[in-house]
Amino acid sequence: MDKKIKIGIVGASGMTGGILLKLLLNHKYADIVIATSETQTGIEISSIHNFLKNLFPLKTVSYNRNQIINNCDCVFLLKSHGEFQEETSRLTNNGLVANPNIKFIDISADFRLKNARLYEQWYKFKHSDINLLQKAVYGLPEIYYQKIKNAFFIANPGCYPTAVILSAAPLFSNKLVDSNSDIIINAISGVSGAGKTPNVRNLAVEVEANIKPYKVGKHQHTPEIKQELEYLMQEPIKNILLIPYIAPFKYGILTTTSVKLSEKISIDNLFNLYHQFYQNKPFVRIYNKEQYPEIQNIEGTNFCDIGLYLDEKTNTCIVMGCIDNVIKGAVGQAIQNMNIMFGLHETEGLPFADFLSKSSL
Amino acid sequence: MDKKIKIGIVGASGMTGGILLKLLLNHKYADIVIATSETQTGIEISSIHNFLKNLFPLKTVSYNRNQIINNCDCVFLLKSHGEFQEETSRLTNNGLVANPNIKFIDISADFRLKNARLYEQWYKFKHSDINLLQKAVYGLPEIYYQKIKNAFFIANPGCYPTAVILSAAPLFSNKLVDSNSDIIINAISGVSGAGKTPNVRNLAVEVEANIKPYKVGKHQHTPEIKQELEYLMQEPIKNILLIPYIAPFKYGILTTTSVKLSEKISIDNLFNLYHQFYQNKPFVRIYNKEQYPEIQNIEGTNFCDIGLYLDEKTNTCIVMGCIDNVIKGAVGQAIQNMNIMFGLHETEGLPFADFLSKSSL
Amino acid sequence: MDKKIKIGIVGASGMTGGILLKLLLNHKYADIVIATSETQTGIEISSIHNFLKNLFPLKTVSYNRNQIINNCDCVFLLKSHGEFQEETSRLTNNGLVANPNIKFIDISADFRLKNARLYEQWYKFKHSDINLLQKAVYGLPEIYYQKIKNAFFIANPGCYPTAVILSAAPLFSNKLVDSNSDIIINAISGVSGAGKTPNVRNLAVEVEANIKPYKVGKHQHTPEIKQELEYLMQEPIKNILLIPYIAPFKYGILTTTSVKLSEKISIDNLFNLYHQFYQNKPFVRIYNKEQYPEIQNIEGTNFCDIGLYLDEKTNTCIVMGCIDNVIKGAVGQAIQNMNIMFGLHETEGLPFADFLSKSSL
Amino acid sequence: MDKKIKIGIVGASGMTGGILLKLLLNHKYADIVIATSETQTGIEISSIHNFLKNLFPLKTVSYNRNQIINNCDCVFLLKSHGEFQEETSRLTNNGLVANPNIKFIDISADFRLKNARLYEQWYKFKHSDINLLQKAVYGLPEIYYQKIKNAFFIANPGCYPTAVILSAAPLFSNKLVDSNSDIIINAISGVSGAGKTPNVRNLAVEVEANIKPYKVGKHQHTPEIKQELEYLMQEPIKNILLIPYIAPFKYGILTTTSVKLSEKISIDNLFNLYHQFYQNKPFVRIYNKEQYPEIQNIEGTNFCDIGLYLDEKTNTCIVMGCIDNVIKGAVGQAIQNMNIMFGLHETEGLPFADFLSKSSL
Repeated sequence: MDKKIKIGIVGASGMTGGILLKLLLNHKYADIVIATSETQTGIEISSIHNFLKNLFPLKTVSYNRNQIINNCDCVFLLKSHGEFQEETSRLTNNGLVANPNIKFIDISADFRLKNARLYEQWYKFKHSDINLLQKAVYGLPEIYYQKIKNAFFIANPGCYPTAVILSAAPLFSNKLVDSNSDIIINAISGVSGAGKTPNVRNLAVEVEANIKPYKVGKHQHTPEIKQELEYLMQEPIKNILLIPYIAPFKYGILTTTSVKLSEKISIDNLFNLYHQFYQNKPFVRIYNKEQYPEIQNIEGTNFCDIGLYLDEKTNTCIVMGCIDNVIKGAVGQAIQNMNIMFGLHETEGLPFADFLSKSSL
Repeated sequence: MDKKIKIGIVGASGMTGGILLKLLLNHKYADIVIATSETQTGIEISSIHNFLKNLFPLKTVSYNRNQIINNCDCVFLLKSHGEFQEETSRLTNNGLVANPNIKFIDISADFRLKNARLYEQWYKFKHSDINLLQKAVYGLPEIYYQKIKNAFFIANPGCYPTAVILSAAPLFSNKLVDSNSDIIINAISGVSGAGKTPNVRNLAVEVEANIKPYKVGKHQHTPEIKQELEYLMQEPIKNILLIPYIAPFKYGILTTTSVKLSEKISIDNLFNLYHQFYQNKPFVRIYNKEQYPEIQNIEGTNFCDIGLYLDEKTNTCIVMGCIDNVIKGAVGQAIQNMNIMFGLHETEGLPFADFLSKSSL
Repeated sequence: MDKKIKIGIVGASGMTGGILLKLLLNHKYADIVIATSETQTGIEISSIHNFLKNLFPLKTVSYNRNQIINNCDCVFLLKSHGEFQEETSRLTNNGLVANPNIKFIDISADFRLKNARLYEQWYKFKHSDINLLQKAVYGLPEIYYQKIKNAFFIANPGCYPTAVILSAAPLFSNKLVDSNSDIIINAISGVSGAGKTPNVRNLAVEVEANIKPYKVGKHQHTPEIKQELEYLMQEPIKNILLIPYIAPFKYGILTTTSVKLSEKISIDNLFNLYHQFYQNKPFVRIYNKEQYPEIQNIEGTNFCDIGLYLDEKTNTCIVMGCIDNVIKGAVGQAIQNMNIMFGLHETEGLPFADFLSKSSL
Repeated sequence: MDKKIKIGIVGASGMTGGILLKLLLNHKYADIVIATSETQTGIEISSIHNFLKNLFPLKTVSYNRNQIINNCDCVFLLKSHGEFQEETSRLTNNGLVANPNIKFIDISADFRLKNARLYEQWYKFKHSDINLLQKAVYGLPEIYYQKIKNAFFIANPGCYPTAVILSAAPLFSNKLVDSNSDIIINAISGVSGAGKTPNVRNLAVEVEANIKPYKVGKHQHTPEIKQELEYLMQEPIKNILLIPYIAPFKYGILTTTSVKLSEKISIDNLFNLYHQFYQNKPFVRIYNKEQYPEIQNIEGTNFCDIGLYLDEKTNTCIVMGCIDNVIKGAVGQAIQNMNIMFGLHETEGLPFADFLSKSSL
């Protein structure tokens, strides 16, 4: 590729905005041309995200639809769910983008659920763009690589779903799961998952020396996980129960999903099945028997590390997924999607790209 | 009670030894007469546990069976599992204690499992004292209060088992659980659970900014949980799967246990059942609907906080238990047991005793 | 003492309010009769501070001056600085309290500085009650025990000042300090110092895996430290420079103060001088040579631990003070003050009181 | 540069070894040919450092001098201080390297102090190679760029010295410091500073929820700081006092150095002086007035962030330095040195290299 991708970032002053900018500064084909912020407009990005000091002279501007459309090849949308859904529709002309060369990657949850009514139930807002919802491609490259290649609009997956779906996909895709049994997910997240909006629950004084479950059985990522696991299995799943926790570390998610298998499989065959499923997937790493993923092994990277435990007597399988919630669980995956859409190697600009791009071909 | 309990502590230099001493210093009927240490013998306790500086002039001595027998009313055994089992047998004359006035509280796992063969499987040592094993009372006061009252030897429960059993007991005791379904336990522990023996896994550099599962399906507390839940239910349980994690906080355990109920029950009736089961149990606190326990609410106390989630459609129940692993999960519970054995109110000397002793009568 | 102290707490819903209530629940002469909150009025205290669940049925009320005056023996004022200064004046009738039996303990900074003009410079509000300012006794019991005994209004010291003044007092009181040299204070605080008011700076995501200096040379506790060190030395001090940091732990402060001594003193004499100064002060513990205080040794207690380093060649002395910022640095010290004012042993109701009350007489 | 640098790593299984490998995997001119380990020989590097899983197939070998000499262009020595000094002499033929094309970068402290006798005093071993000691170049590129360019042996600076020297260099180099006054350094380090050797002091249970000073006035980095500040000032310094702390975060060091200036300077001139001194130094970032460095802004990078506070009345200056202790404080700086020695841009392969290499030319 000889020319750079002109990038617009809508909502650049939040926490994910900062990490996206940091990653893109190490991406040799990225040229950030617009970064918007409504709360901190006209300010140097590096004054908002101090870790970018001396690295990034660009100033934020207020969002302007035409400016985005006329100047960008790729637009990252980093607004909170619900907040920007209608404007996203306008920006993409309800999926009939005027300029077919612009690609959109929406980090919010607004276009992830194919069934619009689920937004009312889980997100408490009425979705107004069924058309774009159907055209949006769920941006999990390990599953939807080909669709992403041809997409113009990516609904970038949520953090918990990324870890859960990737760690469970080979089981569901091979129809190995008893869909009538409960799928129980324990999902432990670092505090960056909550972003930078100040509220008492996320104060350090409430998080340090503590761990707390929240939204048990009610977390809005539940239907997203369900949709994708059902898609993989091509069968309805009776019950998915997500138990999320906030823990006292900054970055990372570790999920542990318990599933009942529908048929006997040996532990060795289980591992084979996983290795086969993720062959040539540079960002998935499968741990050996009796070894389990840890946050410290994936922090700062776009990896999803997977661990497996199988109780052969009872066909109960525990799968673990471990990602950096802000990278593979948000903006790293977004860059992976951008790379695919723009014909680059999917690892381009992400940590260990040199090594990964060679080894995975 | 007019006179003090003369206390011996075998293994006073470890982490639990320090916390036991700290609690006993606030116990008005406790008189610590002997504290043994083989690694740091002849040293002031407060030089070993610096937080006891200026508070405790006693020096450690090397363990001597006769000295213990001749001078103590109550002996706390704080050795690692396996290490002291044979000497415990000698010390208690295989359960035929010469001086019937001495009470023993064993914090190790050596006398918790009634089935001696389980020690070979889970603890890798051969148990040599079936007699004492049968006489030992499992020291979970909320379940075995009467037995503890008349006991001379207490097998003090493990940390994970305390949180799991207490949070699940009303379900099992009321035979509400489908014993053929998997019981899946996610159990997150602070680093104090590993004590102070130096090894790479427990270095701060391996624990900070990290969370890691370990011994998945193989943790030695599994048979202890199984034994007690089966006792409560009076029925064999097919599969208990314990998934332990180490997390970056110092004190505390949070366990989340998923069970399939064998019959429909409304969420309100479930709460009633719990409140009834734990009536007059000062150290158990049941959270309201959609509220969940957190480490910060129990740190430094002998409480076990319990949270409940019920998916009424699928009869899937999630119970959470939250304790300070070193207090209710070890030495606080040991003091509670001592109190009961010596005819004191069970809360004596423990945090909030004044309030709890009044309110729970 | 046969009857209980009727206690009013103004501002009970903040973080210090919670810890004050927790400590008072373990104080056998405390009877909490009123707890006010304007933001969470009419709510059970234990719903605001969840760690008090099942322990404290009292509900908050809106502040009412007459209700306080008519029902309380001792009033703790826990409002932010500046916010309540004028009402405090009215409540105490400008220091001419109608009912001379009521004692006040103000945890805020509003009556700590004798020089009213300093409030304009450091706190950005104009102080309106010179009279009460002069009558208020600075509540550092290790220095002002006799004054506190006879006081009706206590200005409870700040957290940094408590650690700094106590660790440096023997030097200044013995006129050993070169008052023309810089007094440099590095003061590291846990996040509880910031209370529970939500703002971005104190979010866990900004505190975890981080340490940050703030208000270097401009922290409002600087003039408080200066006032007290000058009082001890009876001489003006040229320059005190406070460098505060927020660090990723919940409770505790560690201060390191560098001072140039005005005369040669041996390290042994220095230690003697400290031990003499703090003879019979139950809450001060002096570490041995080459040993230094640590947060973990004082957390949850009312201790101030002190460490000393002396460079004998250059007369440079480093003194370290270590306290639980919310206990000895706020509400524990407030209880110590209450105890003294009400004729109780100063350790009453505080951790290790039994032992400390005996040993310090 | 068309060909890769063949790299040998002596001591690859320790903590710094892991991070060095991680960084080199992102360096396009690095070809790691040998990685030695005596404790974990013959094992895949990625089994030792799990975060390198799937990234690095090389196996460790036992150290062999000839193998190193015959196969490497650049050798990183990562042994503990004292342990390898004599072998380093043999490896380099006492500085008379047979093959002049091999470059050595010693991460240990063994060749940092020009005065050999200081090793006896501070490191407790007798240094046996005065010759190599004199030839070794202290690898602080912001000060010794030209010398490094022509060096064959680099003594890579210590972590505390890097932060202290860089943050204070403009003051000393401009002879602005009163060399008779105390230089007081408070230096707070994350736990990675202690590496992975298991001992009680560095267990998570001793570090979590804690902060602790250690080796006050006795830390072995003191003479290294003194040597370099005296070199910069060309004058002896009377007293440097280093107060190190361990704090509960993984990576990073923040140092605060108090110096008395020898002459009046305005705050604006002070900033000018710093900006001038560090012109075209891509890894040094100077913060604006009243803004201070934080660990979170430098973690994972090779930056040294600097903050300044000046009390204009008293000429007291506080300088802060903030680095990732394992990167700019160890292996990142080592790579920077390698780049310079091999004619690459000094930022090559380090985070933000693309941006930094352009902007700093």
